[in-house]
Amino acid sequence: MSVESISDSAGTGPGGARRENLRRLLAPRHIAVYGGRAAAEAVRQCRDIGFAGRLWAVHPRRDSIEGVPCVRSTAELPEAPDAAFVAVPKEATVDVVAELSARGAGGVVCHASGFAEHGAAELQQSLVDAAGEMALVGPNCIGVLNYLDGAALWPDQHGGRRVERGVAVITQSGNIGQNLTMQRRSLPLAQLVTLGNGAVTGVADLVEAMLDDPRITAIGLHLEGIDDVPGLSRAALLALRRRVPVVVLKSGTSELGARANLSHTSSLAGSDVLCDALFRRLGMARVDHLGTFVETLKFLHVHGAVAGWRISSASCSGGEAALVADLAERDGLELPEFPEDTGRRLRALLGDRVSVTNPLDYHTYIWGDRDAQTACFTEFLRAGSDCHLLLVDLPREDRCTDGPWTTTVDAFLAAHSAVGAPGCVVSSLPEGLPEPVGERLLAAGVAPMQGIADCVAAVAASARIGAAQRAVDSAAPPEVPAVPRGEHHQLDEHAGKRALAAYGLSVPEGAVVPASRAPGTAARIGFPVVVKAHSADLAHKSDVGGVRVGLVDERQVRDAVAGMSGLSERFLVERMVDGAVAELIVGVRRDPRFGLALTIGAGGVLVELVRDAVTLLLPVQRAQIRAALAELRIWPLLAGFRGRSADVDAVVAAIAAIADYARDHDRLVELDVNPLLALPRGAVAADVLVRETRSADE
Amino acid sequence: MSVESISDSAGTGPGGARRENLRRLLAPRHIAVYGGRAAAEAVRQCRDIGFAGRLWAVHPRRDSIEGVPCVRSTAELPEAPDAAFVAVPKEATVDVVAELSARGAGGVVCHASGFAEHGAAELQQSLVDAAGEMALVGPNCIGVLNYLDGAALWPDQHGGRRVERGVAVITQSGNIGQNLTMQRRSLPLAQLVTLGNGAVTGVADLVEAMLDDPRITAIGLHLEGIDDVPGLSRAALLALRRRVPVVVLKSGTSELGARANLSHTSSLAGSDVLCDALFRRLGMARVDHLGTFVETLKFLHVHGAVAGWRISSASCSGGEAALVADLAERDGLELPEFPEDTGRRLRALLGDRVSVTNPLDYHTYIWGDRDAQTACFTEFLRAGSDCHLLLVDLPREDRCTDGPWTTTVDAFLAAHSAVGAPGCVVSSLPEGLPEPVGERLLAAGVAPMQGIADCVAAVAASARIGAAQRAVDSAAPPEVPAVPRGEHHQLDEHAGKRALAAYGLSVPEGAVVPASRAPGTAARIGFPVVVKAHSADLAHKSDVGGVRVGLVDERQVRDAVAGMSGLSERFLVERMVDGAVAELIVGVRRDPRFGLALTIGAGGVLVELVRDAVTLLLPVQRAQIRAALAELRIWPLLAGFRGRSADVDAVVAAIAAIADYARDHDRLVELDVNPLLALPRGAVAADVLVRETRSADE
Repeated sequence: MSVESISDSAGTGPGGARRENLRRLLAPRHIAVYGGRAAAEAVRQCRDIGFAGRLWAVHPRRDSIEGVPCVRSTAELPEAPDAAFVAVPKEATVDVVAELSARGAGGVVCHASGFAEHGAAELQQSLVDAAGEMALVGPNCIGVLNYLDGAALWPDQHGGRRVERGVAVITQSGNIGQNLTMQRRSLPLAQLVTLGNGAVTGVADLVEAMLDDPRITAIGLHLEGIDDVPGLSRAALLALRRRVPVVVLKSGTSELGARANLSHTSSLAGSDVLCDALFRRLGMARVDHLGTFVETLKFLHVHGAVAGWRISSASCSGGEAALVADLAERDGLELPEFPEDTGRRLRALLGDRVSVTNPLDYHTYIWGDRDAQTACFTEFLRAGSDCHLLLVDLPREDRCTDGPWTTTVDAFLAAHSAVGAPGCVVSSLPEGLPEPVGERLLAAGVAPMQGIADCVAAVAASARIGAAQRAVDSAAPPEVPAVPRGEHHQLDEHAGKRALAAYGLSVPEGAVVPASRAPGTAARIGFPVVVKAHSADLAHKSDVGGVRVGLVDERQVRDAVAGMSGLSERFLVERMVDGAVAELIVGVRRDPRFGLALTIGAGGVLVELVRDAVTLLLPVQRAQIRAALAELRIWPLLAGFRGRSADVDAVVAAIAAIADYARDHDRLVELDVNPLLALPRGAVAADVLVRETRSADE
Repeated sequence: MSVESISDSAGTGPGGARRENLRRLLAPRHIAVYGGRAAAEAVRQCRDIGFAGRLWAVHPRRDSIEGVPCVRSTAELPEAPDAAFVAVPKEATVDVVAELSARGAGGVVCHASGFAEHGAAELQQSLVDAAGEMALVGPNCIGVLNYLDGAALWPDQHGGRRVERGVAVITQSGNIGQNLTMQRRSLPLAQLVTLGNGAVTGVADLVEAMLDDPRITAIGLHLEGIDDVPGLSRAALLALRRRVPVVVLKSGTSELGARANLSHTSSLAGSDVLCDALFRRLGMARVDHLGTFVETLKFLHVHGAVAGWRISSASCSGGEAALVADLAERDGLELPEFPEDTGRRLRALLGDRVSVTNPLDYHTYIWGDRDAQTACFTEFLRAGSDCHLLLVDLPREDRCTDGPWTTTVDAFLAAHSAVGAPGCVVSSLPEGLPEPVGERLLAAGVAPMQGIADCVAAVAASARIGAAQRAVDSAAPPEVPAVPRGEHHQLDEHAGKRALAAYGLSVPEGAVVPASRAPGTAARIGFPVVVKAHSADLAHKSDVGGVRVGLVDERQVRDAVAGMSGLSERFLVERMVDGAVAELIVGVRRDPRFGLALTIGAGGVLVELVRDAVTLLLPVQRAQIRAALAELRIWPLLAGFRGRSADVDAVVAAIAAIADYARDHDRLVELDVNPLLALPRGAVAADVLVRETRSADE
């Protein structure tokens, strides 16, 4: 149900009323609250973070809520509110939403639960219908916290404070949202939306609306699944174009995690591989952990997407330098040597006992000497890397006096203000950078990063987003055509091959003939040949002895055909293709939410053991196919290994032909080319399986 | 140099004087300080954490240091000190150490730098000689912090406080050590030793000494390399026997990380794969990050090694449940369903709207209701898992009032005190569990875990240690025989095969003959055959066309031999082995520090692409070989895949034969069996390469 309603919302177009209403909800001039204790708490929280707009309360019996005089009904409100926080029982919620919609309110946060998440799909549909053109967050959500304008549509405590600009977080988990407000690491949180059931307003709507607010520097999504692939794709592409970085923490990578998601929300947990393909395609940087999510958002708030993969690191300890180096390699970052003149000046500053290399262990000879440290960090920041990391853990302020540590931070800030290159101060443990220090760094445009592993992961995520932004002109959303209805049927191998050959895929020369004509056909084609029992019902021919390879003369063909006489009446006789450099599997599956998914993997028996495969969503460009091939573990085999290499252009062309075929065939359910033989010259599909739905007239 | 001195130390045996001296250093009754500002700081730090023993100061000119009256020389001290903190220039350090040794001091911490780490190997040797039977930590280290007895042999601030029991940390990085004292996550740190150059007292000595102190609950090692494999092995085995868990954070996993280590210390960075093999062999749980290191130590302090891999998780949010499930799968933990009666009682307590499954999202219906939560958590803790995780993030105490969160913690503690099963309270962000709450949990025997990912990794590390403790009876240190000297030479293939065949390895039937006799020999052996040019100089025969396979008659053999006439005069004619289920590579290398390392990997061209290999140190038991095979990605191929399986017993026996051969041959440098063909019956070495040093009389 939520899928359809989100599509409705998308259908109103960029200028639609619902979008404007969502903007009103996200930056309201007036807020109306409905309900008892929760509504009172929302009023308190609005006051607490200094909401400057007008606060109204609607209650049928009470005179006031937290000092706000109550009107008896929506109709009595002085104006149509931009935002309403509705915390009344579920059935009453539907009525209130209808009234608000009729009154012309902007949007509503519905706190009540007991809708689709508990099987009450009809009630949820009533809510959707009642909302009309209004924005509606929830039901079954905590609420929305707007720290830019001080609007707390939120019935509980939270840990945030007002900010002038900062990051937005949209989460499918209310609890994780609330916990994020309690972070103590100077993340400037500007907006927090807990989605709940997402019955009306979904992730995509929210992202698009947030992209219109220049105060929002980066967007973080915590997702359990993706309902609306076209919508999210459109929003992600817009974010790329506007240079607003998007970070994703998606759970459900494991089977159990997916099950936990299912038990929690009414949405389907997306197949994680397809989600990942979508994130990569549209430059949404995925991170693995909640801590990394926070640190990456903080980094992006300060530095946006960095220009490349090169980092420099400075610490007064080789121990930390080694940890940085290990992590940089893990995340694909580079630690280039310092430019010659930078190195020379650093050596002059640091003396002979310090080995000047990246990562730099600058030792403690200049510890406590602000001028020397400033000079050192000035040179360090001139290394020209895409990000410069200073590692330092501040001492416990409750137990230690703090001289040289703060001097170190001061020196880095002084150097940074002179040079201006992207810089971070990184503590090895998250708690090593107390909040006031973090805020000071933030104010100076230096990212306060907490935990080396999360910092390195954040820089890598930022670099990935940067690469996607640079390639934005060729970025496109996946196509999600309607899923064809009808009974599935399988093309026979020869028909499948002919169909794909028409799109330019090379297949072995061959013919389908009755048993009696097989030897003669083989002789005409030329030996050695392969003979296969031919029937659309035989999905796994080789498992039932329906494939004979390497037949070198007519007698062998005759014997082979005789041996397979129980399997089929006709046989596919094909020229046998030798000399493959590598075997690939290329498959396309139609997913109802993600559209056509193209999987390219290593073939042969090891595929199933090693799972060496990359999945792309269609449409796909040849450069993307080539990049996917280069990600495979067997790529060196294709590119050149032990004196042999494959015709990579031909492999790419073959895969492009398969993708073209799939896009042109609305009735395609799935197809497999297994193996696609990558040859020194050319690439040949040795076996093809195509499943389609029958059209109505078949 | 440090290697020899550590071996000396080991040579004094368990009752040796140096070991007793190290115990004195680690729990001193009296401390003498030498030096100026650093010595004064050590006195202040001792007073600050309440050292109850006697403090003395030695200074040639000053009357007192921080109120401690000075004597002019070591000789004037009232007694031989158990511990001395020496912070005088490097040359003077050697003299002071000699005096202390002569006086019968227990041990000394040498703070000065400028020894082997800057190339002054002779000066360091003087220091080693001067130490005699004393324990000596450093030089080039910060010092030793003993929070059990309040002995701060430490010239700087630190963030720790006295504890009655807790964990010990030994680190090769002074800075990381100091940062660890600043942790704000209620880790009870009992001992911290920064190793510096480790000239006399090494990791192994320290671990062994700490195992004798029942107040130390777990030991954490931060290593950059391993010098003393036999010593560390002995210590690790003793730790396993005494049930004291050991955690390792080792840097240098990357090439760059290893380089950063090299630039920092005078020790060689160990090959990371061999270090890893040693850790696994002896039940030292390796972790990847500093945060995980701290959390794992904290977990082990509370729970020691858990009994198995089964965890249960409870949160009031499905979002967190999904994160736990994903991480559990990543780390090999299981989330079993609740026992039937537990599930029934939980359903009764939580109501129909809650789906009772593991991980459990118990929702917020009982939020704030201490009795209901206690009842729920009581049932939850009765699930019988090896560890039970309650997820909750405490709100910011500076911005929020705290009702139901603390109620939740109270309820869990009440339930835990009734049931007693291993439990943790886990915050999703590290800062979500403030230190006072952590200390309260710790006091109650519940592990306060900060960060879901680190918590799950800690439980998994604990389970690995538990498995190693249960297998302690079969645990053994690796052998590290002396490395043979002399020129290397390579056995010819036939000689290598005969040598290994004598240990029970199956090799193909074959013979080495001149060209003229090859066809007849082939006929006698039986076709098809393989013919190989035969010369010890041909390391890569197939690359130069020196191998012909699948020869089916005498003429083919004659032609093949003629075609290889330029490569050798004699030829190895062998029966060709068909029908391999899988190809393996088995290799043995002699490492000067780790001894013989046996590597078992997938064979064929994909090995080099996929790096599907496990390395074990010798000696090795058959069960360990089998376990290593089962870790390979191609294991399913061996165990049974698509209707075929390999003779795993024969593969294990073949690898055991190779290992036996290696152990019996002191002059072995390396050997490779590539491929070892795993057949449906048997396992045959198709090619063998053995390199040895020549003995003196060759």
